[in-house]
Amino acid sequence: MNAEKIPDIIITRLPVYLRALQRMADHGIKTTSSQELGEHVGISAAQIRKDISQFGEFGKQGTGYSIPYLLDKLREILKVDRLWDVIIVGAGDMGHALARYQGFTDRGFNVLMIFDNDQTKIGQKIGDLIVEDTTNLVEKVQSSGVKIAMLTIPDTAAQETTDKLVQAGVKAILNYAPISLNVPASVKVQYIDPATHLQQMTYYL
Amino acid sequence: MNAEKIPDIIITRLPVYLRALQRMADHGIKTTSSQELGEHVGISAAQIRKDISQFGEFGKQGTGYSIPYLLDKLREILKVDRLWDVIIVGAGDMGHALARYQGFTDRGFNVLMIFDNDQTKIGQKIGDLIVEDTTNLVEKVQSSGVKIAMLTIPDTAAQETTDKLVQAGVKAILNYAPISLNVPASVKVQYIDPATHLQQMTYYL
Repeated sequence: MNAEKIPDIIITRLPVYLRALQRMADHGIKTTSSQELGEHVGISAAQIRKDISQFGEFGKQGTGYSIPYLLDKLREILKVDRLWDVIIVGAGDMGHALARYQGFTDRGFNVLMIFDNDQTKIGQKIGDLIVEDTTNLVEKVQSSGVKIAMLTIPDTAAQETTDKLVQAGVKAILNYAPISLNVPASVKVQYIDPATHLQQMTYYL
Repeated sequence: MNAEKIPDIIITRLPVYLRALQRMADHGIKTTSSQELGEHVGISAAQIRKDISQFGEFGKQGTGYSIPYLLDKLREILKVDRLWDVIIVGAGDMGHALARYQGFTDRGFNVLMIFDNDQTKIGQKIGDLIVEDTTNLVEKVQSSGVKIAMLTIPDTAAQETTDKLVQAGVKAILNYAPISLNVPASVKVQYIDPATHLQQMTYYL
């Protein structure tokens, strides 16, 4: 397996396969086919076979894929066979929702800290976390070695905070602020913006 | 312009251009180039020129794109030159965050109703909305003619609720439940799942 050669578009689909396979496993299903997996995720069987074959020969002719084996391999490829610490910057509605979200741990992520610059929020308890002062962001991120951040602050503060996160060693940012971020090539950004997602559908209505 | 022929992948990028152009307009900027826009959104100038040219000749050689004109055209193409009513199903943390989100109206969306099946939540006030009983979902959606829904309920209830939404005439679903939904080909689904987005980045770490 040569990590450099896998197209980004395939990497975006692997977590979707992983989620569907995990769901099958939760229902006690042990094997599946590209056809069946395709029906679950809305992607063609041919595409799934092609995507998965990039990483080796996982399927057996006639018997399909072993779900536990494929789960292990996908987790290993995506590096979620471990638990990544993640921080949240912004303790507003969205930050609260993420801090209390139960779906991270099973999928490789542990929310370690949450930050805000609002004095009325600092010290508040959200689930098991206590909101920390953004003033200490760089220092706390550096000393904990956390590499992943979720950004749920207003767009006006997003670039400045991103610069601090990058300076502190963060390499992956999930950005909920409705603005494109400038980061060095070594830093990954994913965007979650509900209005953008809605606009990607109205075209077809 | 022939709507049938525009590849889906281009449609996914247009809202990102729209957002960046709106931001420039908010700063009083009147014209831009594919180069400049590309730097804002992290997409190559050549790709931007190609994407935008699908819809006609918007740029002028030497003077670039007129931002107000391009904004109007993009809004028209994406059909967000009007205000779409949207409902939220699920008044948990995420439903709350979406119901109180201020960024929809400027971008073509009006949150009309929010539903939950939890008796302790029904009747609660969230911003200007009052949580309604999911029992009335189909009837309310049909009588209001709303075509777009955001789904923020547990994955175990997501498919059943989706079937009801489709039955009631919903044509576009923004799904926050971590599960792939089965819908007829005439219904669009977009997915927001933070763990999936995080897993799309860990591969590169």
